[in-house]
Amino acid sequence: MTAIDLNSDLGENTPDRIVADDAAMLGIVSSANVSCGFHAGSPEGIRDTLAAAVANGVTIGAHPGYRDYEGFGRHAMDVDSATLQAHVEYQLGALLGLAAGVGGVVRYVKPHGALYNTIARDERQARDVVAAIRAVDPSLVMLGLAGGVAIDVAERAGLATAAEAFADRAYTPGGELVSRTLPGAVLHDAGAVAARMLRLARQGVIEAVDGTLVPVRADSICVHGDSAGAIEMARATRDLLEAEGIRIAPFAGATS
Amino acid sequence: MTAIDLNSDLGENTPDRIVADDAAMLGIVSSANVSCGFHAGSPEGIRDTLAAAVANGVTIGAHPGYRDYEGFGRHAMDVDSATLQAHVEYQLGALLGLAAGVGGVVRYVKPHGALYNTIARDERQARDVVAAIRAVDPSLVMLGLAGGVAIDVAERAGLATAAEAFADRAYTPGGELVSRTLPGAVLHDAGAVAARMLRLARQGVIEAVDGTLVPVRADSICVHGDSAGAIEMARATRDLLEAEGIRIAPFAGATS
Amino acid sequence: MTAIDLNSDLGENTPDRIVADDAAMLGIVSSANVSCGFHAGSPEGIRDTLAAAVANGVTIGAHPGYRDYEGFGRHAMDVDSATLQAHVEYQLGALLGLAAGVGGVVRYVKPHGALYNTIARDERQARDVVAAIRAVDPSLVMLGLAGGVAIDVAERAGLATAAEAFADRAYTPGGELVSRTLPGAVLHDAGAVAARMLRLARQGVIEAVDGTLVPVRADSICVHGDSAGAIEMARATRDLLEAEGIRIAPFAGATS
Amino acid sequence: MTAIDLNSDLGENTPDRIVADDAAMLGIVSSANVSCGFHAGSPEGIRDTLAAAVANGVTIGAHPGYRDYEGFGRHAMDVDSATLQAHVEYQLGALLGLAAGVGGVVRYVKPHGALYNTIARDERQARDVVAAIRAVDPSLVMLGLAGGVAIDVAERAGLATAAEAFADRAYTPGGELVSRTLPGAVLHDAGAVAARMLRLARQGVIEAVDGTLVPVRADSICVHGDSAGAIEMARATRDLLEAEGIRIAPFAGATS
Repeated sequence: MTAIDLNSDLGENTPDRIVADDAAMLGIVSSANVSCGFHAGSPEGIRDTLAAAVANGVTIGAHPGYRDYEGFGRHAMDVDSATLQAHVEYQLGALLGLAAGVGGVVRYVKPHGALYNTIARDERQARDVVAAIRAVDPSLVMLGLAGGVAIDVAERAGLATAAEAFADRAYTPGGELVSRTLPGAVLHDAGAVAARMLRLARQGVIEAVDGTLVPVRADSICVHGDSAGAIEMARATRDLLEAEGIRIAPFAGATS
Repeated sequence: MTAIDLNSDLGENTPDRIVADDAAMLGIVSSANVSCGFHAGSPEGIRDTLAAAVANGVTIGAHPGYRDYEGFGRHAMDVDSATLQAHVEYQLGALLGLAAGVGGVVRYVKPHGALYNTIARDERQARDVVAAIRAVDPSLVMLGLAGGVAIDVAERAGLATAAEAFADRAYTPGGELVSRTLPGAVLHDAGAVAARMLRLARQGVIEAVDGTLVPVRADSICVHGDSAGAIEMARATRDLLEAEGIRIAPFAGATS
Repeated sequence: MTAIDLNSDLGENTPDRIVADDAAMLGIVSSANVSCGFHAGSPEGIRDTLAAAVANGVTIGAHPGYRDYEGFGRHAMDVDSATLQAHVEYQLGALLGLAAGVGGVVRYVKPHGALYNTIARDERQARDVVAAIRAVDPSLVMLGLAGGVAIDVAERAGLATAAEAFADRAYTPGGELVSRTLPGAVLHDAGAVAARMLRLARQGVIEAVDGTLVPVRADSICVHGDSAGAIEMARATRDLLEAEGIRIAPFAGATS
Repeated sequence: MTAIDLNSDLGENTPDRIVADDAAMLGIVSSANVSCGFHAGSPEGIRDTLAAAVANGVTIGAHPGYRDYEGFGRHAMDVDSATLQAHVEYQLGALLGLAAGVGGVVRYVKPHGALYNTIARDERQARDVVAAIRAVDPSLVMLGLAGGVAIDVAERAGLATAAEAFADRAYTPGGELVSRTLPGAVLHDAGAVAARMLRLARQGVIEAVDGTLVPVRADSICVHGDSAGAIEMARATRDLLEAEGIRIAPFAGATS
């Protein structure tokens, strides 16, 4: 692989609740997953983030979540299909509206938090999300967990898809993420993380917790911006990949 | 005039809070102002209303309000321009997203409640709303109070506009609505209301509280559906207009 | 039995969303289950209802629900114990605060909607609610479904309890409510309802759907105020009971 | 003065939005202004903060704000008296409920953000807040801006009051805070801040921006916990005061 995408969650700040350093991340990533307001952020702040993405030439994705603002979209919800589809259509439309206001174009969809995790294994909710995406704009790309159910459901429905790996997460020999509740699930060494992602970009494998190399299809690498260490790790990953000749480029279309 | 539009506020119900008889109104009006979720309704319920509008051939408009769900959008808010524009873009986009899910198309925008009243006289907020409409879709028609500031601002910005009169409200000799806080401000006789609207459609005048006839430009008549009497009044108005050869037809495009 | 209580859900209105006729109900019932703001109403409107309850000498109960305002507390939620206990403590405290502002005293607690139904059968959530009540004020009486788990849990924890029957609901031979999704679950004949409740008050039995008489312990009868027919039914029930010598009196303490 | 209080805003975190280091602050301050849920935090998280305050022997105050969660209570709102009094009663009651759950007692009230600033100069809203405090518990102490209107209104209504100075803010020669929008309004040097507060505790004066010494009555010093530097500054202030023989002690009663 000579190119890979870097993506990060943005638009989740409000003036008194700074979740991530959006400005720093927009100088590192090629794709921005932008909050649609159900789990974090505010319409006016999201709009500012969209404008900054356009100014930085970063491709825009929608980052819809469950309707759980206080809980930051972390709580799994057993919503019926009509409600879930409506909630996702509502959020995608809202972000398209805000993006239009700053001359940007939404190119892909990456669900957030508990919704992301649920549709990686729950086919019914995955179908609801995919139906919403197709209704709002069938040219939107679905970005999901490599190997998850959502990717399959989206492809069968005719959507373009992209799969992602997580820069700072440990993997099982089966290619799944190690649960955050287990020790060692989250990696903290920027250099080691960068080296793992270089191997992923070059060879399509990640070293699992038992030392085996597991194949992971990844069109994009998810990096975080919610701490000083996270920004440094994202920067180190980008720098190493570029130094080794891997281009950082969006998997979906242009920012505007 | 041989045709006029009838519009009503819809999509404001939830299962336990029935504000208006949406099904009845969709059999009477030619245009539906559909809640965008900030002041009333829920995404899934709004989607049902949009589907019913499509099924009835009723033209769809967006009905955005201030972010005031508990207060039903009745409280005036001094929001800055960046926030107001973002809030309207967000709502318009959200409704476009839901409409796409049911094969409908949003054709116009009529702001709700306190936002409607504010932009009828506050030029700064009117400009913010107009900027949001233009950004999201410049082909959207702006529906506002006949004689209000919002109509002027929208026209200067190049938007198509439509003006409305209120079926059940008394007018001053100056062509303004009599304040709801005054006695006689709201009319209750269905026959008298229908006769007033027939005169408006034919001669472009409404009889004011002092008996004078004031000219009112109206492309549309707003009727309400929030009581049994309101439905009866809306029905009587439509029936009389049609019996007298006035066609009821939307001012904006088709429903889908 | 020479006395029984009548209770109804109140404080759920806002000016644009009239759910029930609070003023009419306060002239009929002896106990008012007052919304705590999580599922319906607003602090200022709830306060008005509390003041009206005091003025009418109606005993005040707290009516806490899941945090689901848009859904009116109808959605079951699998919240953990720490969260549920905190949510109930928060709501009880809030209602005590508002009641203090109008010289009223909260005497009992009747959970609302999905929370009411859940704790009638889910012991874990019942314990969480009971723990919250005991923490805020152990002299509060717990009003719950006759025969439900919540009553048992409350009694084992040392709370005083009261059980209620539903005036307008059909019962199974086992003494349970017939599901609302089945035909005949909700009764509409005011005279028949009143007669059923008279028999309940006199003999402690309700005629089930198969004609058998099932014993139901009921300290209170729940009546609704969300339609003209509901008010009429509540009034007929009270009138018949009083005409037959059954006094309508609160099961808990005085209103202030 | 041989003793002064240190207070800080707490209970404003949720797991994904860490606003301040509550654990660190509870080891430094003598009084905790705890969010009541309208502007920040969640009932379960607030409850955890209250439990930690009790464990640390820190006196608990209520920190009610305008109903503006997304905006963190920063937006001034022109709410009518009935609404404002109800909103404050609701929040105070809610915090009392949560405190009861952990064996804590609320001793004082310090309004938050825009509400704090408004009642420092708007007598009508100050009266509404004071009326709410008196209704819920007239033994609660009102903590407000030294020299502000709220203190006067509270005293005239018979409430005990306490005044506070801000550790990290510049003062005008008239004894008012320099607006945050002006350069130099916020101080960043921990040592200088500590020295200013020592002079305040000893002599009752603060050096204004023009070098004059202005008298400031302060029963308490507000310190912040929303950055690493803020914690360091709070720690430095406490350490210097104690080293110089000034005891750090709450102005109101015990934590439980």
